[in-house]
Amino acid sequence: MKKTDMYHVALGERSYDIRLQSGSLKNIGEAMRDLFPDAEHCMVISNTLVAPLYLDVVKESLEASLWQVFEHILPDGEHFKTLDTWSGIMDGLMDARLSRNEPIVALGGGVVGDMAGFAAACYRRGIPFVQVPTTLLAQVDSSVGGKTAVSHPHGKNMIGAFYQPKLVWIDPDVLQTLASNQLRAGLAEAIKYGAIWDASFFNQIERDAQKILALDDTSINQIILASCRYKAEIVMQDETEQGVRALLNLGHTFGHAIEAMTHYTAYLHGEGVAIGMCMAARLSEQLAYAPKGTEANMIKALQALELPVNPPEFTAIEWLDAMGHDKKNVGSHIRYVLLKKIGEAFIAEHVKNQDIERLIASYA
Amino acid sequence: MKKTDMYHVALGERSYDIRLQSGSLKNIGEAMRDLFPDAEHCMVISNTLVAPLYLDVVKESLEASLWQVFEHILPDGEHFKTLDTWSGIMDGLMDARLSRNEPIVALGGGVVGDMAGFAAACYRRGIPFVQVPTTLLAQVDSSVGGKTAVSHPHGKNMIGAFYQPKLVWIDPDVLQTLASNQLRAGLAEAIKYGAIWDASFFNQIERDAQKILALDDTSINQIILASCRYKAEIVMQDETEQGVRALLNLGHTFGHAIEAMTHYTAYLHGEGVAIGMCMAARLSEQLAYAPKGTEANMIKALQALELPVNPPEFTAIEWLDAMGHDKKNVGSHIRYVLLKKIGEAFIAEHVKNQDIERLIASYA
Repeated sequence: MKKTDMYHVALGERSYDIRLQSGSLKNIGEAMRDLFPDAEHCMVISNTLVAPLYLDVVKESLEASLWQVFEHILPDGEHFKTLDTWSGIMDGLMDARLSRNEPIVALGGGVVGDMAGFAAACYRRGIPFVQVPTTLLAQVDSSVGGKTAVSHPHGKNMIGAFYQPKLVWIDPDVLQTLASNQLRAGLAEAIKYGAIWDASFFNQIERDAQKILALDDTSINQIILASCRYKAEIVMQDETEQGVRALLNLGHTFGHAIEAMTHYTAYLHGEGVAIGMCMAARLSEQLAYAPKGTEANMIKALQALELPVNPPEFTAIEWLDAMGHDKKNVGSHIRYVLLKKIGEAFIAEHVKNQDIERLIASYA
Repeated sequence: MKKTDMYHVALGERSYDIRLQSGSLKNIGEAMRDLFPDAEHCMVISNTLVAPLYLDVVKESLEASLWQVFEHILPDGEHFKTLDTWSGIMDGLMDARLSRNEPIVALGGGVVGDMAGFAAACYRRGIPFVQVPTTLLAQVDSSVGGKTAVSHPHGKNMIGAFYQPKLVWIDPDVLQTLASNQLRAGLAEAIKYGAIWDASFFNQIERDAQKILALDDTSINQIILASCRYKAEIVMQDETEQGVRALLNLGHTFGHAIEAMTHYTAYLHGEGVAIGMCMAARLSEQLAYAPKGTEANMIKALQALELPVNPPEFTAIEWLDAMGHDKKNVGSHIRYVLLKKIGEAFIAEHVKNQDIERLIASYA
């Protein structure tokens, strides 16, 4: 039997465990039976890409632990992360007549987890849910911390809730079937923790890039566990993003704009974040917050992970307009997460529109 | 200057005041400026019935306190309490680009408050909101306690959130323009507090029925303040309805079924609750939980308030099916709130379907 790594996210009544173990997908039923001894039904929410690969093993495990399993399969892709798709989940839950104490299982990547979590948050004003992330991005980032959402045509993740899962169940073996661009996109979020918090973790990922991309067991498990720990620590300090949690948005204000301007078809979320982190690094240098070389270090690490580093071409007005709809903004300011150096980030409240114009011009 | 009555709802970070004062609608701007010193914009959400009466005075008051006011006017009626209508609020909030710290003002009855509150709960994962209830039902019940929701075609209030307002601002003068059936419907919820919690309050409402229906200042203010206090006390003990808060659903399992079976057109919510409380009283007697005469007392009080007491004719199967979709249910049981006597209620977990068949048959 392989070792289980565990991290406890302490949030009072909303506390839960993150459990990481190779091959553990087939044990999810038992874990859920322990957690919800009195529930009869559950609903597994997955998508058309993941379900053919992993739904059977999850269902078998659940049924072996006497769960009656409903399923709801979403179309695959960020552009289906809409109120319409979510409304379809609600219909499915109503048809299944799931009760207040019966859980949803989110089997998939960030989009599935965000939508299933938001459905759990709102159906009957809240039922339990369990995250079973199947992409690296979801394993290192989106499955932990309780941010759930769907997107609005005018802005990503604009409609959602802070709603914590009851368990995060990570089986790194599922990464074997993950497309390599998805793997790299997940690494962008992992390296983000290093960039904002811990330069040595940043350097470690860059150094181990080849092993990680080859899915070396030890390296990948280390990355996932460390990332979950960083994420959980920040969330425990600031669950609803009143302060320090905003640092996790490094690269995201630019990244969301990139995704929106290219209609969620040209870049994966993690790819947008990679480019966004490079832009944030360059802006930090231009405003003299970070020493020269910060951007170069960022680019070097991301290129080692084979991630994109150059922004697509749009006018400064297009960038500002797309970013003006981003939900991190307070009042009429756009808030940027900038770097003091690799390993230390801060919230810049007073970046001017002409600073952004200069940044965009510098790429021309 | 008239006296302000105030009650503080203590829920940690989610605490807020209920303020009750005749003529206070014109002072809402100032109160909101004190509460949100840094916000520039707000959005008033109202409906086509209330907006022509009270939107101007609210807007003037807000603008005098330097608020920039957006407005979003909903169609009037329970059958518009849908995801579609709510999605339209989201579009309005996106167009207005309301920020995270900028509040929604819910100006209207229970439907407006529930939908505006649920919009506030989900837009940018939560922005502040203020309840300005304009019906008696909203003033005595739905504006306090943080239950927000929309309905699904298969069940009332099935999609929503527990999300507390930052202020409840009650001006009883607005009841002058309230339709008399709406006034009576609100009294059903007030008498409910008496039925589950305090027989003397129950008797007081019955005794003062004529004065209350004539909108006597002192009587009506007493009823509102006492109701808010009962509601707040229960919510402070059990914010998310894990236990005692469920008692507030006396009459609601039957009442929601009545509303659903008649497609939300024949009965106001409070009217459904009135009939439902009579049914709960009769069932309590039939199962020998309550002494003989409990139903008769309930009927007498509700008739003094000119409320309906006889259920519409449907088969037992129709009743059970409609109630099976009600969200108070845990597992496959339907949970009923029953009475031990007027003034004391409890949750009955094990009412059998044949008990309901007998109850329905007894009305034939």
